[in-house]
Amino acid sequence: MANYREMSEEQLKIEKEKLQTAYDAFKARGLSLDMSRGKPGAEQLDISMGMMDVLHSGEELHCQSGIDCRNYGLLSGIPEAKQMLADLLDVSPEEIIIYGNSSLNVMYDSVSRAMTHGVLGSKPWCQYDKVKFLCPAPGYDRHFAITEYFGIEMIPVPMSENGPDMDMVEKLVSEDALIKGIWCVPKYSNPQGITYSDETVRRFARLKPAAEDFRIFWDNAYMVHDLYDDGDTLLNIMEECKKAGNPDIVYEFCSTSKISFPGSGVAAVAASKTNIDSIMQQMTIQTIGHDKLNQLRHVRFFKNAQGVREHMKKHADIIRPKFEVVLRWLDKEIAPYGIGAWCSPKGGYFISFDTIPGCAARVVQLCGEAGVVLTGAGATFPYKKDPDNANIRIAPTYPSVEELELAMELFVLCVRLASVEKLLEN
Amino acid sequence: MANYREMSEEQLKIEKEKLQTAYDAFKARGLSLDMSRGKPGAEQLDISMGMMDVLHSGEELHCQSGIDCRNYGLLSGIPEAKQMLADLLDVSPEEIIIYGNSSLNVMYDSVSRAMTHGVLGSKPWCQYDKVKFLCPAPGYDRHFAITEYFGIEMIPVPMSENGPDMDMVEKLVSEDALIKGIWCVPKYSNPQGITYSDETVRRFARLKPAAEDFRIFWDNAYMVHDLYDDGDTLLNIMEECKKAGNPDIVYEFCSTSKISFPGSGVAAVAASKTNIDSIMQQMTIQTIGHDKLNQLRHVRFFKNAQGVREHMKKHADIIRPKFEVVLRWLDKEIAPYGIGAWCSPKGGYFISFDTIPGCAARVVQLCGEAGVVLTGAGATFPYKKDPDNANIRIAPTYPSVEELELAMELFVLCVRLASVEKLLEN
Repeated sequence: MANYREMSEEQLKIEKEKLQTAYDAFKARGLSLDMSRGKPGAEQLDISMGMMDVLHSGEELHCQSGIDCRNYGLLSGIPEAKQMLADLLDVSPEEIIIYGNSSLNVMYDSVSRAMTHGVLGSKPWCQYDKVKFLCPAPGYDRHFAITEYFGIEMIPVPMSENGPDMDMVEKLVSEDALIKGIWCVPKYSNPQGITYSDETVRRFARLKPAAEDFRIFWDNAYMVHDLYDDGDTLLNIMEECKKAGNPDIVYEFCSTSKISFPGSGVAAVAASKTNIDSIMQQMTIQTIGHDKLNQLRHVRFFKNAQGVREHMKKHADIIRPKFEVVLRWLDKEIAPYGIGAWCSPKGGYFISFDTIPGCAARVVQLCGEAGVVLTGAGATFPYKKDPDNANIRIAPTYPSVEELELAMELFVLCVRLASVEKLLEN
Repeated sequence: MANYREMSEEQLKIEKEKLQTAYDAFKARGLSLDMSRGKPGAEQLDISMGMMDVLHSGEELHCQSGIDCRNYGLLSGIPEAKQMLADLLDVSPEEIIIYGNSSLNVMYDSVSRAMTHGVLGSKPWCQYDKVKFLCPAPGYDRHFAITEYFGIEMIPVPMSENGPDMDMVEKLVSEDALIKGIWCVPKYSNPQGITYSDETVRRFARLKPAAEDFRIFWDNAYMVHDLYDDGDTLLNIMEECKKAGNPDIVYEFCSTSKISFPGSGVAAVAASKTNIDSIMQQMTIQTIGHDKLNQLRHVRFFKNAQGVREHMKKHADIIRPKFEVVLRWLDKEIAPYGIGAWCSPKGGYFISFDTIPGCAARVVQLCGEAGVVLTGAGATFPYKKDPDNANIRIAPTYPSVEELELAMELFVLCVRLASVEKLLEN
């Protein structure tokens, strides 16, 4: 084994031939695996099946405040669901609204509302020729899709191991009043699995944006999604914002999609009382209320925040070995050749892999042609444009360990082949 | 008993004194009843409790297409839920999208999307200084609240026993390209219980609006909500629009909120394939998918459209007597005095009552002070402005029959008292 970058052209050609033969053999095996999204595997869904039984026809279906959860009422959520999710986010129940099943939908609604009605009485964003968002990248493709859909200009911000480049964030938001927001996945970031450092969180809380209607879209999607007992800890943004005299600057989102059932979970937004009141003005128009029976189902199953945390250990036990399969293959078959870089996250749903510049799309193509669908190259950047064509998001949760072993055997082969091709071009 | 309008001032004064005494006595009884919203009673919710048991931990939770309903996927809904709701609306499954729990939310989203993105590529409505909606009135207050929230000017259109005044509708939409939509509850209209005549539906289908992005918001909220076996029939708007060469002009909405559980039902929109494709472009950005387990729960419980229709007979058996209580009191205690007009609907959730001009707010006030909360006077008109101050929406479903007897005893007393007061003013 030798670092590809130190090989002669002749050596690389021989290596390429060898890899191509191995790849062709793999292709002939007719794999069919979808690793494109952060989807739990069936085994993970099985651990929440008890939730199917907690509400039954012999059961009392009133919530703590005495309201019949089967009927209309309680627009902002049932008290016990508010309490449970507030405890998980370490905020007060007055600072939270329980929504339907999708936190993405809450984020979409928050942007949409700002477009048509502004933020706390500010000018509606649709009345500007242009508004802008900061987009730490690599990041979550569905965040970028929302801002792109609304014609919001996206400015990429580089990520470091401590989170977004805060020098850049501070400078830009203080200078440009057209910058109205920033997308953040602060814990086990999508796709890198980076947790923002305490200093990063404090610098977010202390931001002094030129735009009074600037908001931090703090998508705490992986708040309790640790793979190991010594998981990362994230400073409480709401608390830090209060301390900094900046209580209204943040919307915090979360859901139980990857705790209970994707698509049948419960989502929430936490924010200052002032923001919550303003969001409720919209919600009063938008709906008569969200699904309270599903809220009740979640509380009866998990009991409380501690119940959720214990449940997450079962998820970790299932998916930790999958993350370790990925890392083992990368360590064994990529590291020696000097052709990639990656993180070893302590939680979340992804492993982010960087090829040598210019190879990501080719790797995704090679994998796809051999039957393993990866997230599209570029997807982790605004407008799907990865300037280095290097980043690939690996989603290890959905396949079984056995399938994942195969998929990773293919993946590292494709990375090696694409790297050799690229090095031969130069 | 005598018609109040034919009484002398002296007679009216004596009548007033008598009514005031009766009213004061009623007030002293300390009633406390909320009849403000169209809310099912607990007995109605009980008939759907079997739905709590159809999904349990021993159950297979895949849908017809083989997708695990517990996981992400199937953005537009599971096939069997599409089929069931499509059958109820008499459209094809390709013409329907299953949403979350709230059809109001789907309507809100439809208006919001048009504001920011236009309709099938038209200019976004937020880029106009003003856009307008036609609002058949009396109508549904939550419809009017959506258009008011988005700053859309609302033009009231009078209702007749056949539906909205179509001469006016045709004239206005053909002349004014700023009129972008109309709110309709075509079957058992809210609050009058009027079902649009075949001719009315056909005239809707044949509309030739000046605005290419004009849409009929056809809220078929009470599609299967008959009180009697010989319920009203409503012509299929989608079919008529196709025949008229106008397939894209309508969005049809429905939900199971008043079939299964309010807040925990399943909502849907039906529209032409062209409209559906365009709505799906938004949904792809907005959410990863709605609650498929709840869709599956509904199909497993109801089986199919016929199952829903049979289930509705149980609802009818519970609420028919309540409607009849209201009508009996009106016949007995209002008709003889010539101080009101009302409809006798064959379905839906409301009875609409018109006082003599100028009395609605006073009746609502009198009832409220004696402990019975009615929908606010004016609520059934755009901007809450009932030009005649006459319309009151009676929602008989939530109270028990016994409570309703009391509430109606009070109601007719308040109508009589307010009428006498008004006649004495003149």
